[in-house]
Amino acid sequence: MKFVTAVKNQVEFVGVIVEGQELIFNLHTIDEARGTKKTPNHLIDCIEQGEAFVQHVKDCISWVESQDQTGTFVYPISEVKLLAPIPRPSKNIFCIGKNYVEHALEMGTKEDIPEHVMVFTKPPTSVIGHNDPIDLHSQVTSALDYEGELAVIIGKKGKNISREEADQYIFGYTIINDVTARDMQSRHKQFFMGKSLDTSCPMGPWIVHHSGVDNPSNLQITTKVNEETRQDSSTKHLIFPIDELISTLSQGRTLEPGDIIATGTPKGVGKGFNPPRFLKAGDVVEITVEGIGTLTNRVEDL
Amino acid sequence: MKFVTAVKNQVEFVGVIVEGQELIFNLHTIDEARGTKKTPNHLIDCIEQGEAFVQHVKDCISWVESQDQTGTFVYPISEVKLLAPIPRPSKNIFCIGKNYVEHALEMGTKEDIPEHVMVFTKPPTSVIGHNDPIDLHSQVTSALDYEGELAVIIGKKGKNISREEADQYIFGYTIINDVTARDMQSRHKQFFMGKSLDTSCPMGPWIVHHSGVDNPSNLQITTKVNEETRQDSSTKHLIFPIDELISTLSQGRTLEPGDIIATGTPKGVGKGFNPPRFLKAGDVVEITVEGIGTLTNRVEDL
Repeated sequence: MKFVTAVKNQVEFVGVIVEGQELIFNLHTIDEARGTKKTPNHLIDCIEQGEAFVQHVKDCISWVESQDQTGTFVYPISEVKLLAPIPRPSKNIFCIGKNYVEHALEMGTKEDIPEHVMVFTKPPTSVIGHNDPIDLHSQVTSALDYEGELAVIIGKKGKNISREEADQYIFGYTIINDVTARDMQSRHKQFFMGKSLDTSCPMGPWIVHHSGVDNPSNLQITTKVNEETRQDSSTKHLIFPIDELISTLSQGRTLEPGDIIATGTPKGVGKGFNPPRFLKAGDVVEITVEGIGTLTNRVEDL
Repeated sequence: MKFVTAVKNQVEFVGVIVEGQELIFNLHTIDEARGTKKTPNHLIDCIEQGEAFVQHVKDCISWVESQDQTGTFVYPISEVKLLAPIPRPSKNIFCIGKNYVEHALEMGTKEDIPEHVMVFTKPPTSVIGHNDPIDLHSQVTSALDYEGELAVIIGKKGKNISREEADQYIFGYTIINDVTARDMQSRHKQFFMGKSLDTSCPMGPWIVHHSGVDNPSNLQITTKVNEETRQDSSTKHLIFPIDELISTLSQGRTLEPGDIIATGTPKGVGKGFNPPRFLKAGDVVEITVEGIGTLTNRVEDL
């Protein structure tokens, strides 16, 4: 199951895409027709309901499949506007720095390979959805860069989580482009300023439920700019794998449903080329993670 | 006017303290008695209403002062439990690193004096109120430290704000203790991990409206641990003053009502002593900012 936040006829809704179909089930119109009122307005609140929400979605899908007329409940994906699956996270987006050896090397030297998990954050105001424009921000940066990443969505509140238990805290997975202004990143020392511009967190196109991902630690991840492959790696090369990220982040820190962890980017960012190949207006960035989907955004000088 | 979020008889409410009084006006019970319904449940939503909210508060105070019986509308401060004024910020708390020369020097050398604003963030889960315990977190750190800071509360949505306009975007001021696990801060390189433990953002006791602060860039700031003065400086020594912080943060980034900017800490943190004087269970940290108040928290190994 893939969960989306989408807009049709100016109305935002939570929807689900069934594996192998190009259709979105609108959970709110289904609830209304069934007389059930179980789907919260925002996906982040659905995630908080955990398994009860997932079971409700399965019931909704079964119900629709038993109906003759499905037009008001199910639409082709092409007929809706997808937003980021969590358009407004309730806190910082957690991002892992230098979590692939070859990316650490392209950004510096062996000294840059971290011995401990490196974490910085992006603000909720940076989030945009699939197909939304990335602002080039030419007034404040001349070094805007892409970073394709697998992101984990936390499903359950927890603290001091062990690596062994970490799996149980995952709701699902999405894709994030950790757009970075390299000049601001280095000028301001701490990464936040270079990582936090408006539109610098494209996310989506959806959240794939954990049940649909066999092994998140062995997924091909590629980033193309104007159809040219720039990043091509696998999440099996993560220095700190997902269970360790969740465990480390949660030591002394409460994780909450809807928390987002961007797991880091592999080799091939614009800054890694000589000369660097930063983004320019008109560039189209496509990030594909095996089993998740493709997140596409065009760069525009807004 | 000082705005609070408080609890009395298990009910959370937004209140106001009038200058020179030790009384809290409960805006919700006043609204109810007056038949007006203008105060949102959360202070962050009040702040979003801007001047309309402030005018409403003034009307509420005048109305109470015209009443014979004020018992259900006004309480002694001692009879309520104060929460953080914004108990659950809607995003990262923005924190400025090394914004006093002498603090930069005690943390390192001249090389550590920043040429550009350094920003990191704390998560909403780290926020606690006045008199709430700070967790020593002895399981994950042996170097917990205090940092007394003046914090600015943004009152209005804005982007690309000039230094000249910055004043208009300030709702008020509060105090933050930027509690830091020094060992995690250095081990994880980026500051986030050392700055984000649960209870590591004591905030309060209230927000003083900007109209009550003549010159935020000339306020005495002191931190005492067990009544011994450790930090004693003035906000006039900020390397990057408040108007510059707001302007710099907002270039390409949307600031929103209720955003919090902790402006940095002066010399005298525990790590600055030789040997370092980190916090231990039982320590009481009191941060006083002239014209704002005193934020007090006791350290406990929870």
